[in-house]
Amino acid sequence: VVRLRRLVGRRSVRAAEVAYVAEGPKLLIEALEAGVALESVYAAPGADPELLAKAVAAGARVFALAEGVMERVADTVAPQPVMAVLPMPSLPLRTLSRAAWVVVCAGVRDPGNAGTVLRAARAAGAEGVVFAETSVDPYNPKTVRASAGAIFRIPVCSAGSLESVLADLSSWGFCRLAAVARGGRAPEEVDLTARFALVVGNEAHGLGPRHLATVEELVSIPMAAESESLNVGVATGVICFEAARQRRAQLRSRERVGRA
Amino acid sequence: VVRLRRLVGRRSVRAAEVAYVAEGPKLLIEALEAGVALESVYAAPGADPELLAKAVAAGARVFALAEGVMERVADTVAPQPVMAVLPMPSLPLRTLSRAAWVVVCAGVRDPGNAGTVLRAARAAGAEGVVFAETSVDPYNPKTVRASAGAIFRIPVCSAGSLESVLADLSSWGFCRLAAVARGGRAPEEVDLTARFALVVGNEAHGLGPRHLATVEELVSIPMAAESESLNVGVATGVICFEAARQRRAQLRSRERVGRA
Repeated sequence: VVRLRRLVGRRSVRAAEVAYVAEGPKLLIEALEAGVALESVYAAPGADPELLAKAVAAGARVFALAEGVMERVADTVAPQPVMAVLPMPSLPLRTLSRAAWVVVCAGVRDPGNAGTVLRAARAAGAEGVVFAETSVDPYNPKTVRASAGAIFRIPVCSAGSLESVLADLSSWGFCRLAAVARGGRAPEEVDLTARFALVVGNEAHGLGPRHLATVEELVSIPMAAESESLNVGVATGVICFEAARQRRAQLRSRERVGRA
Repeated sequence: VVRLRRLVGRRSVRAAEVAYVAEGPKLLIEALEAGVALESVYAAPGADPELLAKAVAAGARVFALAEGVMERVADTVAPQPVMAVLPMPSLPLRTLSRAAWVVVCAGVRDPGNAGTVLRAARAAGAEGVVFAETSVDPYNPKTVRASAGAIFRIPVCSAGSLESVLADLSSWGFCRLAAVARGGRAPEEVDLTARFALVVGNEAHGLGPRHLATVEELVSIPMAAESESLNVGVATGVICFEAARQRRAQLRSRERVGRA
């Protein structure tokens, strides 16, 4: 239980133990459905026995916690009846070399925003998310929660400098795009049907000039007058789903050509 | 200060006093730029004197708080140096009768999500947001914060039943759309250039069948296989910005016709 609390609270402990925590039955169900490896599951009194049986069947060790113990461990105000410990995948960037398109977080600091980016990118069809620069730990419990299970289904790579990430992605044929609040082209004017990597920056400061110099194209979502900017999760969602829309349109026009 | 704390914490106090609170210099700057009425500003030691002078010039009474007082009032863990009290606008639904398009929250419960909806809707060009059913108070401090100032710039109406809201909007010529996780048409297949009202539902449960029966069209954002659903703020953003894209495309094609 001490270990559990440390895994919840500290990135360095997660890195050292190569494990992370997913809180709550909804996330455990998602993890089971995604078929990811489970190390162990901690259950407070009142946890669903059927769900625990499924976790055992999936290879997890299940530990029953006494009344009141979960309250001392959980990250949330209203603690969940179950908490899963999962081995942390450690994927090299090369995993993404054949992805259709990916999102690169460069300095996304808020764990909830990072989870929303994962959830939106995965739902739109992105095939990987990179956490570069000073981005939050993607295995932070708040990020895992906000991802709503997307973190179990999309390859996630942690990397250092954006420059080296983009150099690698570029060498694999990715067009490098960056989302900026203003000054770029509208998403529908950019070809998002080719292989691309979309860089999204820090919530408050966006991307610095040094980073903007390393991309081929700037993308700006046109906004109503006097709108400050968009939440990074929403901005990522809008551009990613515009990519999905362009890809659907391309597919439909190919089908028409095929039929003609 | 007791009043301030009560305004931060309780919807009923805000409703009784017809006032709400915006925390932090960024929101105060947004409020000043938007030109909304300010009742008063409370400043902790260290608040920017220039900003306070601007607030005075805008008609606000400014009160200096002693060291440590703001910490007892603020909603945030790291309290901000200034806190503004604003009169709460109370707009009848009729205010929106000539809007180009609007968003209707039906049971959006999370204050942060509600603020993200406001921010995304305003940035995309929506001309009003309605909070109906069991939706959170739009003047909750967390919602005000997540709206990033959008709440000062877009008309917000609080209403009771979705049914009566939609009946009124329909009588004013709004097409009634509802965002659902699956089963609807893709946003780009729906005409979003006409006057419409987009209903978005509860984070966990979406919209009930009773509500779905009162709309003309269901809209579903196509998602990758095994994606659960989208965050309500992201889903609203994706559909609203698709509306903005369709409107830009229409404008461009009209300009082409005009030139021809």
